[in-house]
Amino acid sequence: MEEKQDFIQNLSYDSVIFGFNGTQLKILILEYHNTGLFALPGGFVQMDENLEDAVKNGVRQRTGIQDIYLEQFYTFGGLKRSDPAAMDKILTQNNLDKEQYSWMMGRFISIGYYALINYEDVTPKPDELSDSINWYPIDELPKLMMDHEEMVERALRVLRHNLDRKLVGTNLLPHKFTMKQLQQVYEAVLGVGLRRTTFQRKMLSLDILVRHEKLFQGKAHKAPYLYSFK
Amino acid sequence: MEEKQDFIQNLSYDSVIFGFNGTQLKILILEYHNTGLFALPGGFVQMDENLEDAVKNGVRQRTGIQDIYLEQFYTFGGLKRSDPAAMDKILTQNNLDKEQYSWMMGRFISIGYYALINYEDVTPKPDELSDSINWYPIDELPKLMMDHEEMVERALRVLRHNLDRKLVGTNLLPHKFTMKQLQQVYEAVLGVGLRRTTFQRKMLSLDILVRHEKLFQGKAHKAPYLYSFK
Repeated sequence: MEEKQDFIQNLSYDSVIFGFNGTQLKILILEYHNTGLFALPGGFVQMDENLEDAVKNGVRQRTGIQDIYLEQFYTFGGLKRSDPAAMDKILTQNNLDKEQYSWMMGRFISIGYYALINYEDVTPKPDELSDSINWYPIDELPKLMMDHEEMVERALRVLRHNLDRKLVGTNLLPHKFTMKQLQQVYEAVLGVGLRRTTFQRKMLSLDILVRHEKLFQGKAHKAPYLYSFK
Repeated sequence: MEEKQDFIQNLSYDSVIFGFNGTQLKILILEYHNTGLFALPGGFVQMDENLEDAVKNGVRQRTGIQDIYLEQFYTFGGLKRSDPAAMDKILTQNNLDKEQYSWMMGRFISIGYYALINYEDVTPKPDELSDSINWYPIDELPKLMMDHEEMVERALRVLRHNLDRKLVGTNLLPHKFTMKQLQQVYEAVLGVGLRRTTFQRKMLSLDILVRHEKLFQGKAHKAPYLYSFK
């Protein structure tokens, strides 16, 4: 554990890491030792460290995931968002000195980041403060501490808004994919079923797809076209 | 001037206030007393104050503009963004004690906010630190201090991205407007000329407009339709 003077005081970051395997959307959640407290992976920014580096390094240390690209989505600055009682419990259960770490019980403004990765590609590892770190389906999250549920909601809104752009360059779809595979991504992220014809028309009108050869698997006349992102 | 202990240390906000009068897009810029330093209006967050309240109150004090709605767009956290020499100059020219205000020369993470208002509706007033506060056309900005030019660029990108949504509920257009008036807003904000037919088709396809009666001014057969936002 690092010391108070290393960090910018009253400032933190939190990360909403979305995992997707082609059909289901999940979020990475930490559980603190013997507290029943669930939280998004987060941390602090050192005085001599770029914000982006702090987030990248901190998320790697807390989750064990290497080289994840996180994007800022919102900074949470309400006075009511802090929860000194929960921080107190975490310090107690980790046998940390409360005087030394009293700065953790103050008011924090927290910068939110999100990422979208394939949860089948990574095995998260809990850090020293946490019992476990696990992927939870977005509709089966445990109760989260502080304002972390609001953070998840807002990150999900941003992800939905930027989905067309976010998918390009990720490994969430194979390089070439069918319209049906693309529709499954949208349905999982948006949390609703979509009409095939309407979805196809919308996607083609966005002008972000290149059409390739057909994918022959069974009956030739039913073979779907393959697409990739421009 | 308030004291160090009132504020969260190493944290600030800055505001990009876009002004629009129907044809031209401008930005509100402060000039500090006898320094030649131009900057976006910004400030600090008190320890016992919600971030949103700090921004709202601070912008009112620095610009004289009442009740402006500002929206967060990005938090700037690079180590290189601070400029202690410029802060030193501002303190000197305002006869402020450098020891007392040495905290202003440290590293700051700054939360960016933007707003879009009609510059003909307001008369900005400089605060005690500033010589002047003026509207500058976006293509005729003075050189700005620190990373404020990057802030303007990023805010402009967000404004352009969200323009459809931002215009609803503002007073930048009359309640009922012609397609030509709407096109002038887009052209000024995007900084490019648009084809009338393409623009009209795109706007109608967004499904955000209601068509009303025609605006009769001269020859009846040339009268344009009036629209409002849904």
